[in-house]
Amino acid sequence: MIDFACKQFKLDEVIKCGLGLAKADYKLLEYLMKHTTDWYTTEQLAKTMNLNLSTIQRSVKKLYERDILQRNQQNLDNGGYIFIYKIKDKSHIKKRLMEIVQNWVKKVDLELNHW
Amino acid sequence: MIDFACKQFKLDEVIKCGLGLAKADYKLLEYLMKHTTDWYTTEQLAKTMNLNLSTIQRSVKKLYERDILQRNQQNLDNGGYIFIYKIKDKSHIKKRLMEIVQNWVKKVDLELNHW
Repeated sequence: MIDFACKQFKLDEVIKCGLGLAKADYKLLEYLMKHTTDWYTTEQLAKTMNLNLSTIQRSVKKLYERDILQRNQQNLDNGGYIFIYKIKDKSHIKKRLMEIVQNWVKKVDLELNHW
Repeated sequence: MIDFACKQFKLDEVIKCGLGLAKADYKLLEYLMKHTTDWYTTEQLAKTMNLNLSTIQRSVKKLYERDILQRNQQNLDNGGYIFIYKIKDKSHIKKRLMEIVQNWVKKVDLELNHW
């Protein structure tokens, strides 16, 4: 548990709030944290996580925008391509989260100046 | 207001929790923040703040232990002395508080390592 001003927080609350994730987004993040070396299409994720494609697409979009996923193109035989996704390094994600937390804390500093 | 993990905090909650102060202790702190240049005996503080001496003594002891007050001896004509107190620099108090807040935040860092 994490303490802030005599209130307790679970780590997943901090992560969800920090990245602005809904429950489904966080589930995808947890899944990918356990499968850090693989590249996935949204179709593959929908299948293995047993969720509908539009839910996965929404979550993948959000995690990609939050700089948690990296994206690549996989060429198809017909000349087209599909996107594949892989979670970024844990150290990168950790750094992003700590930046967000430090931004929250910066407010204490600012308010103390006007105290 | 200060945000942490989508919960809001008032600055005085953060200060009170960080320094482990009760309401009466915090009132004394606020009073002394407005009278930063003066030295006081506990008797003087009890009189001007209209509180009983033992309450003030308890709060002064706590703020002194928390490194918020500095103490000096004032010699009396009869050879004895009394203690006088003055609030420390605001920059010092701010630094102390930010150290405490950074200690709370360090827990996020530690828990992320085991995530």
